[in-house]
Amino acid sequence: MRALRIGLVGLGKIALDQHIPAIRSGVAFELVAGAGRAPTGIGVPVFEDFRAMLDAFALDAVVLATPPAPRYTIARVFLEGGVDVLLEKPLCSTLGEAQELALLAGRTGRVVFGAWHSRYNEAVQRAAVITQSEGIATMSIEWLENAEKWHPGQRWIWEAGGFGVFDSGMNALSIATRLSAETLTIESADLTLHEAGQQAIAADVMLRAASSPQPFQARFDWRHQGEERWNIDIRTFAGTHLMLERGGAELSIDGHRIETQSDEYPTLYDEFAHLIAARKSDLDAEPLRLVADIFMKARRL
Amino acid sequence: MRALRIGLVGLGKIALDQHIPAIRSGVAFELVAGAGRAPTGIGVPVFEDFRAMLDAFALDAVVLATPPAPRYTIARVFLEGGVDVLLEKPLCSTLGEAQELALLAGRTGRVVFGAWHSRYNEAVQRAAVITQSEGIATMSIEWLENAEKWHPGQRWIWEAGGFGVFDSGMNALSIATRLSAETLTIESADLTLHEAGQQAIAADVMLRAASSPQPFQARFDWRHQGEERWNIDIRTFAGTHLMLERGGAELSIDGHRIETQSDEYPTLYDEFAHLIAARKSDLDAEPLRLVADIFMKARRL
Repeated sequence: MRALRIGLVGLGKIALDQHIPAIRSGVAFELVAGAGRAPTGIGVPVFEDFRAMLDAFALDAVVLATPPAPRYTIARVFLEGGVDVLLEKPLCSTLGEAQELALLAGRTGRVVFGAWHSRYNEAVQRAAVITQSEGIATMSIEWLENAEKWHPGQRWIWEAGGFGVFDSGMNALSIATRLSAETLTIESADLTLHEAGQQAIAADVMLRAASSPQPFQARFDWRHQGEERWNIDIRTFAGTHLMLERGGAELSIDGHRIETQSDEYPTLYDEFAHLIAARKSDLDAEPLRLVADIFMKARRL
Repeated sequence: MRALRIGLVGLGKIALDQHIPAIRSGVAFELVAGAGRAPTGIGVPVFEDFRAMLDAFALDAVVLATPPAPRYTIARVFLEGGVDVLLEKPLCSTLGEAQELALLAGRTGRVVFGAWHSRYNEAVQRAAVITQSEGIATMSIEWLENAEKWHPGQRWIWEAGGFGVFDSGMNALSIATRLSAETLTIESADLTLHEAGQQAIAADVMLRAASSPQPFQARFDWRHQGEERWNIDIRTFAGTHLMLERGGAELSIDGHRIETQSDEYPTLYDEFAHLIAARKSDLDAEPLRLVADIFMKARRL
């Protein structure tokens, strides 16, 4: 089977750090072109305009790793142009856009994959088997990092539509929704706004599942100094204690560290290849839905 | 067939102005009790605690006309107590709550009805037949009223979770989503915040349907003086010009006024009776989804 010819739109940090190495580490895809403000040396032709890339190459698939605002428009062009689409989280800038892309993929017979990368850690998949069967009695999330380190010079992130601290906080929510067999609802949310006034730099959120006796506390903070803390601490109704650390890369069960692989992006590309072979879309908007509910319910400080 | 015994939780302006008269104007329901801060003279026993009402009466159905924040918790109690539930708009305070109530209604075999009252104007139903078949080329919404007149003393409306101008703006969005055969997405939104700082007192929103050449402009303003302007102006792809006025109560087609009935709440109760007879829920969250997308995408001024 020949490799699928894939293009990459948006050549920022996540594209260079994760997508290009992951594509090149596997055999399913061959990176043939990029679009965006050109970085040096990705080894394939780079176009300023994504439409020029679409016209120039017979692409099988494309990855959209731009900021969220233009994703919807770009995704439409590729789906209508006969290309299967992988959307980096947070998929799109609104729930309506995600709904419409799912419909469009159905109408055009293309595959659209909403790639919540944190879910593809083996540790998360292992944890989910337990939490889905035993049920989550308590859950506590802390997602603390430094915005300067992870989003250097990204002004869009603080602007309207930019998500602020939820840009990475959505990774935690993508894991939480994967772990929970029940709908998670937002009970309350306090947002501490960044000085630009549009987006939160920190947030305290109370989540709830219908069967849980207590709400689940989630703390997101981009003012954190020192090593990142990306942890989810869970106790099931059967009494099992699960601790996910390092953004879902590491799992301990009842205090014992479980050996797992931390290869989220390569696994995510394996999944994309499977979806393409099966001609099946996967566009789960639940993490984005939680963020929308937080924005709607939040108290802004 | 005996009348269905119905209770009413939340005895504010909308309950007194609309729900009680509508229930009493028909034969399908008999109002047997209320719960809330007691107004004088609704002619049935009133309980401070909705649970006491549930315990005291063998209710077939209940209407929740409280502010949105407690709705979800109350609705769960009634669904689990074997009672069919009508939710005043905006249904719940989050999309997750609406999702979970739909699931719970399914599990308990109860009916839940999300009652977007503006849709039940005959003028809206007539307009929808045309717009669904001809497609919407242009749409312009203005929803201008005075907050003091329509929400006297309602502090919750300005607080976190209170929706501000979208509390009534959602009526326009409930009509727009009924009229459009396509998903409506939010392109941009500018919110002018009320002095309390949490909710918008005015909003300029650009909506879009995939096939429309131009975005649809929607203006919501609660600082309006004088007569309300609740208008939706539409041109279809076939060139038909539709004008909905007075909140969907009046329709003109190509400048000619169409004779219609304006009986939204009685029609809404007829629909609830039909859903109960068919054991079928109807919980369309699209208008609330648009508001969530607005909150997530908006620039706050």
